[in-house]
Amino acid sequence: MVEYFANVPYIKYEGKNSKNDFAFKYYNLDEVIGGKTMREHLKFTMSYWHTLAANGSDPFGVGTYQKPWDNETDQMKVAKAKMEAAFELMDKLGMDYFAFHDRDIAPEGKDLAETNAFLDEIVAYCKELMKTYNKKLLWGTANAFGNPRYVHGAATTCNAYVYAYAAAQVKKAMEVTKELGGENYVFWGGREGYETLLNTDLKLEQDNLARFLQMAVDYAHKIGFTGQFLIEPKPKEPTKHQYDFDVATVLAFLRNYGLDKYFKMNIEANHATLAGHTFQHEVALARINGVLGSLDINQGDPNLGWDTDQFPTNIYDATLLMYEVLKNGGIGQGGLNFDAKVRRASFEVEDLFLGYIAGMDTLAQGLRIAYKMLEEGEFEAAVAERYKSFTEGIGKDILEGKADFESLEKYALTNSLIKNKSGRQELLEAKLNQYIFNE
Amino acid sequence: MVEYFANVPYIKYEGKNSKNDFAFKYYNLDEVIGGKTMREHLKFTMSYWHTLAANGSDPFGVGTYQKPWDNETDQMKVAKAKMEAAFELMDKLGMDYFAFHDRDIAPEGKDLAETNAFLDEIVAYCKELMKTYNKKLLWGTANAFGNPRYVHGAATTCNAYVYAYAAAQVKKAMEVTKELGGENYVFWGGREGYETLLNTDLKLEQDNLARFLQMAVDYAHKIGFTGQFLIEPKPKEPTKHQYDFDVATVLAFLRNYGLDKYFKMNIEANHATLAGHTFQHEVALARINGVLGSLDINQGDPNLGWDTDQFPTNIYDATLLMYEVLKNGGIGQGGLNFDAKVRRASFEVEDLFLGYIAGMDTLAQGLRIAYKMLEEGEFEAAVAERYKSFTEGIGKDILEGKADFESLEKYALTNSLIKNKSGRQELLEAKLNQYIFNE
Amino acid sequence: MVEYFANVPYIKYEGKNSKNDFAFKYYNLDEVIGGKTMREHLKFTMSYWHTLAANGSDPFGVGTYQKPWDNETDQMKVAKAKMEAAFELMDKLGMDYFAFHDRDIAPEGKDLAETNAFLDEIVAYCKELMKTYNKKLLWGTANAFGNPRYVHGAATTCNAYVYAYAAAQVKKAMEVTKELGGENYVFWGGREGYETLLNTDLKLEQDNLARFLQMAVDYAHKIGFTGQFLIEPKPKEPTKHQYDFDVATVLAFLRNYGLDKYFKMNIEANHATLAGHTFQHEVALARINGVLGSLDINQGDPNLGWDTDQFPTNIYDATLLMYEVLKNGGIGQGGLNFDAKVRRASFEVEDLFLGYIAGMDTLAQGLRIAYKMLEEGEFEAAVAERYKSFTEGIGKDILEGKADFESLEKYALTNSLIKNKSGRQELLEAKLNQYIFNE
Amino acid sequence: MVEYFANVPYIKYEGKNSKNDFAFKYYNLDEVIGGKTMREHLKFTMSYWHTLAANGSDPFGVGTYQKPWDNETDQMKVAKAKMEAAFELMDKLGMDYFAFHDRDIAPEGKDLAETNAFLDEIVAYCKELMKTYNKKLLWGTANAFGNPRYVHGAATTCNAYVYAYAAAQVKKAMEVTKELGGENYVFWGGREGYETLLNTDLKLEQDNLARFLQMAVDYAHKIGFTGQFLIEPKPKEPTKHQYDFDVATVLAFLRNYGLDKYFKMNIEANHATLAGHTFQHEVALARINGVLGSLDINQGDPNLGWDTDQFPTNIYDATLLMYEVLKNGGIGQGGLNFDAKVRRASFEVEDLFLGYIAGMDTLAQGLRIAYKMLEEGEFEAAVAERYKSFTEGIGKDILEGKADFESLEKYALTNSLIKNKSGRQELLEAKLNQYIFNE
Repeated sequence: MVEYFANVPYIKYEGKNSKNDFAFKYYNLDEVIGGKTMREHLKFTMSYWHTLAANGSDPFGVGTYQKPWDNETDQMKVAKAKMEAAFELMDKLGMDYFAFHDRDIAPEGKDLAETNAFLDEIVAYCKELMKTYNKKLLWGTANAFGNPRYVHGAATTCNAYVYAYAAAQVKKAMEVTKELGGENYVFWGGREGYETLLNTDLKLEQDNLARFLQMAVDYAHKIGFTGQFLIEPKPKEPTKHQYDFDVATVLAFLRNYGLDKYFKMNIEANHATLAGHTFQHEVALARINGVLGSLDINQGDPNLGWDTDQFPTNIYDATLLMYEVLKNGGIGQGGLNFDAKVRRASFEVEDLFLGYIAGMDTLAQGLRIAYKMLEEGEFEAAVAERYKSFTEGIGKDILEGKADFESLEKYALTNSLIKNKSGRQELLEAKLNQYIFNE
Repeated sequence: MVEYFANVPYIKYEGKNSKNDFAFKYYNLDEVIGGKTMREHLKFTMSYWHTLAANGSDPFGVGTYQKPWDNETDQMKVAKAKMEAAFELMDKLGMDYFAFHDRDIAPEGKDLAETNAFLDEIVAYCKELMKTYNKKLLWGTANAFGNPRYVHGAATTCNAYVYAYAAAQVKKAMEVTKELGGENYVFWGGREGYETLLNTDLKLEQDNLARFLQMAVDYAHKIGFTGQFLIEPKPKEPTKHQYDFDVATVLAFLRNYGLDKYFKMNIEANHATLAGHTFQHEVALARINGVLGSLDINQGDPNLGWDTDQFPTNIYDATLLMYEVLKNGGIGQGGLNFDAKVRRASFEVEDLFLGYIAGMDTLAQGLRIAYKMLEEGEFEAAVAERYKSFTEGIGKDILEGKADFESLEKYALTNSLIKNKSGRQELLEAKLNQYIFNE
Repeated sequence: MVEYFANVPYIKYEGKNSKNDFAFKYYNLDEVIGGKTMREHLKFTMSYWHTLAANGSDPFGVGTYQKPWDNETDQMKVAKAKMEAAFELMDKLGMDYFAFHDRDIAPEGKDLAETNAFLDEIVAYCKELMKTYNKKLLWGTANAFGNPRYVHGAATTCNAYVYAYAAAQVKKAMEVTKELGGENYVFWGGREGYETLLNTDLKLEQDNLARFLQMAVDYAHKIGFTGQFLIEPKPKEPTKHQYDFDVATVLAFLRNYGLDKYFKMNIEANHATLAGHTFQHEVALARINGVLGSLDINQGDPNLGWDTDQFPTNIYDATLLMYEVLKNGGIGQGGLNFDAKVRRASFEVEDLFLGYIAGMDTLAQGLRIAYKMLEEGEFEAAVAERYKSFTEGIGKDILEGKADFESLEKYALTNSLIKNKSGRQELLEAKLNQYIFNE
Repeated sequence: MVEYFANVPYIKYEGKNSKNDFAFKYYNLDEVIGGKTMREHLKFTMSYWHTLAANGSDPFGVGTYQKPWDNETDQMKVAKAKMEAAFELMDKLGMDYFAFHDRDIAPEGKDLAETNAFLDEIVAYCKELMKTYNKKLLWGTANAFGNPRYVHGAATTCNAYVYAYAAAQVKKAMEVTKELGGENYVFWGGREGYETLLNTDLKLEQDNLARFLQMAVDYAHKIGFTGQFLIEPKPKEPTKHQYDFDVATVLAFLRNYGLDKYFKMNIEANHATLAGHTFQHEVALARINGVLGSLDINQGDPNLGWDTDQFPTNIYDATLLMYEVLKNGGIGQGGLNFDAKVRRASFEVEDLFLGYIAGMDTLAQGLRIAYKMLEEGEFEAAVAERYKSFTEGIGKDILEGKADFESLEKYALTNSLIKNKSGRQELLEAKLNQYIFNE
């Protein structure tokens, strides 16, 4: 087999003082933290689309990335070379998982039958490589947004024939995900949304989306696919009003249609920030609602209004994310997928590795810090102390459902002197810094 | 009684060519549109807080507004004068409704008992003036955010004694709303939210909010208050993460706690835009979910990142809003409340009238245009045509629940040629302009 | 010659009640307003890139637009067909002007020499068609951002060889602009900016940009090109920190390097809003600084954080823009270029016409309203009245340079009672609506 | 003298492992870094307004802060107590500098003469305390925005009498700044801007602002004030269009009126981010333009659209800021002023100290890291390598002014093969993390 990244060595952990660009300084995969290895905690996942399929183009210019696997006219040959490159990269980075859209791994054919045949051929090859390299599929999904047929959406299209086509495509994508032992199946609502209400039947589109998801659930049951179903919230792109705006919007939708028992969420950092939230907020909201399924790890730019999908290098975000994940008892069946791409100007193949190393090291350090924060318990103790009044007296009555407006008024009328305490935000931020600086 | 706006006449409709600043050019209250008068369609409502209580201060300077009713040291005398000014203003503007927070109309006393007594005294006076002037209360609410006791929230405070106090305050506010025949009671979650998860128990706070709302429902039943209960979504202010971010977030919350059957929403234009949506989006989403309760009519500034609460003068927003309201069969038990204030530099008492005239004229013109759009049916016909494929064949099967992934795949495999049609957004926007320009 | 838009008739003015989608309702090109025809006032210009070169792709999917002129493999044949389509479109729309980047009209060859030869061949054909159709070139420019060689910028690249190449390209683009009688030459700083200061020499890049512009000025003088030089401000795209952020930033730069006497500005609506300003602000700022050169007419979406380049349909923006243009004594050597594209879902060739009609009608109506506002003089009178205190006494002294801190203090110490008047913003907004609603 | 912060000890450096909330963990004032102590590098400055004058109110509620110095009705007594508290706080924190607006330290009287007399009395007391405590004034300024007289601006008001009053006020503020040995005088353009062009004469207002600044320069020369003059850019607040939007806007303005030789800038972190820039960008732009004067150190919230003025705790911002400051050869006559306030919920007096400690420790750590980055030279070497092509051959010719479009074209025609190198952004971000994590 060709070696596509011949200049890049296997990436090893060399410790924090290493000056070797092609080494981990913080991610030590076998290091045990709280009874689990870093590898088990983090379940790092390669995103096939950004890593192999993307080319660095943007709305102002064509692609720039070096892609040594893409030098053939036969698209199936390219697809195989691309897959070999993918496994070489995972192997050299020591990543156990990958994730893909159907169209990332195989090209479209002249009709659906040929497209499916192409997919089957590549999936067979993928299975072989998975065995060879001992890699696993975190999740599969269908790209039902890139082709012009989905110009008005897929499950929320105005065109019934497109809806049927999308159903067929998702059916197939679920089948191949099952075939490859995928642990999850993701629904990211590509063009599920609308541009203007002047031409849109909002209710019909949302009803149709619910029907579509129900059919997916039914089909999974039928074929015995036991992977976790995940919806990935996102606002503003590509349609102006995406139906899956954020975690709360998806919860409202699922609960409205009785679908909440079947779906968890795949939460992306940059999608959270585009919706006006912090990543930690979205993850915590999912956690307390029992729907924290998996994570798309990247970061946006607060100065830019679109999904920049940068490799995550911010230690605050990494630490607070891992804090939530640890409080959740881990990420479970999900993983940490790098839905991240190198910048257009980082176009050399080496940059792919440098991007992943940057991200993996940051998350690893975040895990260490977050674990220590929980172990020492300072923050949790401060929170418990802050809400202590709900553990006794009138507060306890409230939590136990023994209070009503009349009993509370009676209490308030005779207890008018109320003393609050400072929330101590600045102190807590300084303490967080101390954990970060001292790790 | 003192006349506070002696320089301002009763505002009359003089038609679109009037050059009289103190006349309506478009709002003709008795004009019948589609079987209802403009007055009935629009149910214009005066906001007590912006109109009477505000003073034009901002984070960079003290108040500027002329307030001729506020020249006493005895706060109860001021409260009465303020109320007289309120009714004079409503009367001169020909507005039928008003809305208030408890603390807008009466001052706080030395303890809850005195505060309630102050409120009772003012409410009695209000009732009298309502009869004299023939005015109605659209809704009442409690200000449980301005006083320092609510620094950490009211129903989501960390302090059980504050929670009890808030319950007592809301109980009283509901009672006075009932006393005055209020048609609705609004919950705007003032400081219900959090600043940092470092000091916050997110789940406990949300559970407590649900408990609070359930107690409110129970108490309303007990006292026979039949007004509509409304929650008002808002993001980002005053806490960084407000729990009632937008319509979808509130739906998710209500459905989670089984509260959705008791609440509709009071939707505000500027809150919608701060959450990253259009006002029309939020209203339409509420409409199709059956929770469009009432409206806070104002507008924000797309260049500014906070709630500017400007008087609404944008004809696009007005038209598209009224389009949704008409499709909803009207605003029902709710109304159109001007949650709007004059700019700090518009500090003369006359400006209050000029602001309301600007807003009322804009909404009136929006109503006319929207009605014509629906009457002529061009837009609805275009939408129906666009989704026609769902009225027959495979599309009809989908809507009727007769399709599944397997039948759809079968269809798609033999119908691979799909033709989409243009969404014609530019044409529809030009048509909308034509309706606006030609009215 | 092939007719590419056979289904589309010549677009005529049919008046405001026309229901013909393919007619102007407000743009009546020969109508005289204030001594000039609408055609002369507006100088509508077709953007070659959005209209002919774009394909509707976005970061989430491939192109959708129907492009009947693009069905050959020989790129020079396509370039000629594209140009024929361009002139047919201008002709049917009654537009007098067009604008292009070098790479919009001709493909790149295997090296610079071949690229220039391709360009020359197309330019000769263009000249012919310009004569046939009686069309004019508003401006030309060079696309020095799309090709991977410009990945780090052109005039602000870190690579001297790229800088040289960019100079050669701009030299050629200026020559062909001159050859075609272009009335202006535009510098839009494509990738002139930076992503991170970690790898950037900010001062060297800005110095190099100044050197580049000076060379352009020198070369124009040498070849006798008398067109106006225009810089087009833009923030955030494609580099995170664009050097030409907004009008003020460009002014600071030009004044720093003594280049301000050679350049005016081409101001774009959507670029203004991305920089946090209104379009009117940027145009007014350019006007009072004497650098209002030309206009890129489009609109963005306040909910979206990137350059959406929509056809302008907002009557407020159109009116306030034309108000500034009229106060400027017209747009002079510049024009109104539609830097606008149809939405991805408006992919039929007819949509191109519908987009232009929407935009042209909106601007035409804006012109009518703005002219009336100035003719009636209400707003200008209100402004004059507001600043009247500067026409006499101490105010006059201030303007005439007769005051200093000591004389002003003396005045203030004995005149401590100051009375301000309301800014009357709400009234003025209502008046603006009245002009808009009544036109 | 009363001790206002009796519960708070003198804050000492205890090193990074200290668990004492009231100790520095990273700021070691006498530690020498690169030949200067931390104290000399950082010149930490207390902001009088946020620390002493603010009360924690926001647009939704009244003040919450504990202010033990504010328990008198005589405003001059309060002013003195406030000043004693200020010096106690500086002393306990080991800060050498403070900064104020005239109205922070003394109340307004019944007219300008009395106001000035009040100010003189407090200034005399301040001078005494400065000697006692050995503290210095970094800068003074005038609050010409809070009082209703400035509702339409001060130097850009529409009212000549207000302009005169503002001149008198600034004259006095400069005098007292001189009296107290202030090292700088700051112009922050409070309400210098506009809300709507419908009522604004943009050119007159900008001309008047220039006249005002020239008078200030003239008066400073006259009285021999040798402090540095600083303009502080800010966008969006309190007027929608602030004239001093950002560094570039101020440069354009100063250069237009020939004022650039007299002014440097006071750059604020949160103002930079509100304008759509990073803090580092604004500081670097000022540095290369020779106008980096002083710094307002705080941070905003990327989710919130207004100036939140939080204590700075982000190590990335702190490091990159100090990197620029060190490259500037230090902050010179300026300093690092904490234009920061504790959150409304951090209302206890202790929080003031905790906020300052958080900020001072963060900046101190940022200084250490930045110094090491420069000392090791990795980043600067990478930048030098990246631009190497400008040090020889055609690149050198360009920098030396020996190239023109013709010579560059000649070069490009025979050198068409261009090779770019990756910008390595991800690697550089990982390296930055390594410096941060390992310090």
